[in-house]
Amino acid sequence: MTGFGLNNLPYGVFSTPGGAPRVGVRFGDQVLDLAATLDDSTFAAPSLNPFMAQGRARWTEVREQITGILSGGRRAVLHPLADVRLHMPFEVADYVDFYASEEHATNLGRMFRPDSAPLLPNWKHLPVGYHGRSGTVVPSGTGIVRPTGQRKPPGQESPDFGPSRRLDVEVEVGFVVGTPSALGEPVPTGAFADHVFGVCLVNDWSARDIQAWEYVPLGPFLGKSFATSLSPWIVPLDALAEARVRTPTQDPRPLPYLVEDDPWGLDLSLALALNGTTVSRPPYASMYWSPAQMLAHLTANGASLRTGDLYASGTVSGPSPDQRGSFIELTWSGQEPLKLPDGSTRTFLEDGDEVTISGSWGDVSLGEVTGRILPARR
Amino acid sequence: MTGFGLNNLPYGVFSTPGGAPRVGVRFGDQVLDLAATLDDSTFAAPSLNPFMAQGRARWTEVREQITGILSGGRRAVLHPLADVRLHMPFEVADYVDFYASEEHATNLGRMFRPDSAPLLPNWKHLPVGYHGRSGTVVPSGTGIVRPTGQRKPPGQESPDFGPSRRLDVEVEVGFVVGTPSALGEPVPTGAFADHVFGVCLVNDWSARDIQAWEYVPLGPFLGKSFATSLSPWIVPLDALAEARVRTPTQDPRPLPYLVEDDPWGLDLSLALALNGTTVSRPPYASMYWSPAQMLAHLTANGASLRTGDLYASGTVSGPSPDQRGSFIELTWSGQEPLKLPDGSTRTFLEDGDEVTISGSWGDVSLGEVTGRILPARR
Repeated sequence: MTGFGLNNLPYGVFSTPGGAPRVGVRFGDQVLDLAATLDDSTFAAPSLNPFMAQGRARWTEVREQITGILSGGRRAVLHPLADVRLHMPFEVADYVDFYASEEHATNLGRMFRPDSAPLLPNWKHLPVGYHGRSGTVVPSGTGIVRPTGQRKPPGQESPDFGPSRRLDVEVEVGFVVGTPSALGEPVPTGAFADHVFGVCLVNDWSARDIQAWEYVPLGPFLGKSFATSLSPWIVPLDALAEARVRTPTQDPRPLPYLVEDDPWGLDLSLALALNGTTVSRPPYASMYWSPAQMLAHLTANGASLRTGDLYASGTVSGPSPDQRGSFIELTWSGQEPLKLPDGSTRTFLEDGDEVTISGSWGDVSLGEVTGRILPARR
Repeated sequence: MTGFGLNNLPYGVFSTPGGAPRVGVRFGDQVLDLAATLDDSTFAAPSLNPFMAQGRARWTEVREQITGILSGGRRAVLHPLADVRLHMPFEVADYVDFYASEEHATNLGRMFRPDSAPLLPNWKHLPVGYHGRSGTVVPSGTGIVRPTGQRKPPGQESPDFGPSRRLDVEVEVGFVVGTPSALGEPVPTGAFADHVFGVCLVNDWSARDIQAWEYVPLGPFLGKSFATSLSPWIVPLDALAEARVRTPTQDPRPLPYLVEDDPWGLDLSLALALNGTTVSRPPYASMYWSPAQMLAHLTANGASLRTGDLYASGTVSGPSPDQRGSFIELTWSGQEPLKLPDGSTRTFLEDGDEVTISGSWGDVSLGEVTGRILPARR
């Protein structure tokens, strides 16, 4: 049933012509109008935040109600998907981006720091991450204006300023926090499902030339902050219960606060398509750090969580070349262009290119996140 | 008049016993109750965001109204400062922290990367910055729980986990965005005053041991994200018109998008006090990059601004040792302990220590931001 059967039931925000944005659930090629069906004003909000703030017990209860309604043929207000407009599913509080793929970190290390060991000494001890810009997280389909910035190509004495020539994507999976936590109180790995509401797809657009020049010593900034695209449907953790797998063996053994008793690796299959051609199939199961470990690390210092916090996995790259989740890796920094079916080649993104990331576990679809490159502003 | 005369009139959020938080203006040792005085529901909000979103023309108009009321003795609802409780003055959207003091960047470079040039090649070409955690920006007076995290002291083979032993402060000045901007549209240096509402003091608490181990290659994360403290009063740009100075000479000349026609350096005097003893007097006029340049850089890639965006200058450190804005610099990484009047010495912060940052230009006070260190949670 197109990946959106009774075992999925992801949440999003939609509007019908003339109507206000409100919470819906995707079921096949229809959208269940939750406020109208359940007569609950929580779902009349233009974001999932009020519902997500209600916590795990309530999420379970509503999922059961919806399953009952859709399987029992009870009264349900449904709209054809083709007739609705999709919006940002939630208001992003803080956005954190991790770096949890060993293959990706190794590949980037080789390209950005060719003279030293690709994996830095801390990488296998903690899930490396940093804060991104939550104000520029945009819904799937938003046009991406090619960013302008400082670039200093190798061999050039000083930087110049202009449109990025190395515009790239990062195929990532995002985790959305529902239940907040108190300042000063770490969230252990075992409390992951109490706090995380669901999962989505993220395209962390990256301007590699801007990033390479700016990123020492405080990390990526303008090379990332122009846009991050989000898929419209947030898949509940419950829908992915059987997708859970152990992470690859972690050696050295993580410090106790990062040990997870129940595995939260996820066996998701991802795909990256450029102008309709699939160019990569990154396997999420290869990620070194699990999302429960990321959450435990993010809060280990007492940092509090808010409803709407989003954290992403970092680029998902598998061990084989056709599993790499970014063009900088797929084309090895532009040295090995991709050949496309129309005979053209591609290193980094060109104006007009459309990128689509999709993902699924079995017949549970994460949907897709798309974006088209618009020319730089003059 | 205690730094809060008619030429200052900073905005904050206060409540009286039993009353809801609302917008107020500090005048001497009193708080002007703006919603009650102007009969305008914008000021009944528990944050400055709705007012800040109205833009520069409205800010000017309200400032003139308030000046008229307070100088003309017209009807005004005033509360003694001692009778009110102060709250977070605004809801923080995104929080960006810059690194704009040449002395600070040089000092930190010497300590963190002793084997290479202290100032990295990009530093004089762009205001280096990164995103911090907006969910843990807290109001002045909030207790700061000593953060726990991974530390790897020199000579130790692998990291351990425990309370930070190198807990520090950063004396910074914050700039608060009122008027939003559109995605894809850079904000030039000349539009600084159209977007920035006012100025405050920021203490960017830092756990140096956690930061030193985690920060490569994606920048500071848990070493900073446990707490950032904000002063309660946002001083309007208009109150600092005469504090404006040129930045120090910038050589090499910045790229055109960073050139400012009108100077936005600020001749603010700052002070850092530990348990009541002033230990440093950082001069803001020494900052290499101006806040207008920071804003132009932050948006150069098309990143949009939201009402409530906060960006901070980075640690303010002057050229002389008693002008350094952090303990890691004041004690040179703990090697040269400070002597305190009670005969004790201090390298980094101890439980129970209280830190106060204050600032002013002439008789215009920025007030102060304080915080006391609480023991780590067990």
